[in-house]
Amino acid sequence: MSFRTHLESVVNQVEGALACSVMGFDGISVDTFQKDESAELDLNGAWVEYANLLTQLRNAAETLKTGTVSEVSVNSEKVLTVMRLVSPDYFLVLALHADGNFGKGRYVLRVTAPKVRAEL
Amino acid sequence: MSFRTHLESVVNQVEGALACSVMGFDGISVDTFQKDESAELDLNGAWVEYANLLTQLRNAAETLKTGTVSEVSVNSEKVLTVMRLVSPDYFLVLALHADGNFGKGRYVLRVTAPKVRAEL
Repeated sequence: MSFRTHLESVVNQVEGALACSVMGFDGISVDTFQKDESAELDLNGAWVEYANLLTQLRNAAETLKTGTVSEVSVNSEKVLTVMRLVSPDYFLVLALHADGNFGKGRYVLRVTAPKVRAEL
Repeated sequence: MSFRTHLESVVNQVEGALACSVMGFDGISVDTFQKDESAELDLNGAWVEYANLLTQLRNAAETLKTGTVSEVSVNSEKVLTVMRLVSPDYFLVLALHADGNFGKGRYVLRVTAPKVRAEL
């Protein structure tokens, strides 16, 4: 399976999903599957910002006692975003409508991360 | 009701909750209710770092099309953390065990935020 197949599978499994992407911590997307209806949202712009923040959070967590950060979510009025670490250099991002199935999104990213890791 | 009463109510309603705090974006806690069993975790240290990141996320979101960031969660192997904006200067933080009820935590913070805002 290619990256794209995994990403498409995530978007199709989660109610309200807009797009799913494999990204590097440099903010560059390896591959993205995006539903057409979400084209008006500047998701790439958002994710580049989030990648930067995720890097800082990861560094912060290393100095704390709460363990390595494995998942971060950033929720606004319109869009829910779940990010999950895949490897030290890459992470998965899933964007959902604000009324999408957030819990299912977290679950599907958790089970998809090892599959994506195996292909990196 | 005082801040403390609201915070205690949040911790008691959510399975696996460790502590709940009202914090300023300067990283200073206004009030905190913490269960004794979580004393070994350096939660205050973590929250000061998160406050800083939340400020940056809020600023990033303002320049994006996804709307104002209202909720951020940072999940590590041991601790789940949900942060919810209360006002432009303050936010609520809830820390839970990794196997705590995350969805309930999000819900209880959402309904508690307006009550805390009314007292600021």
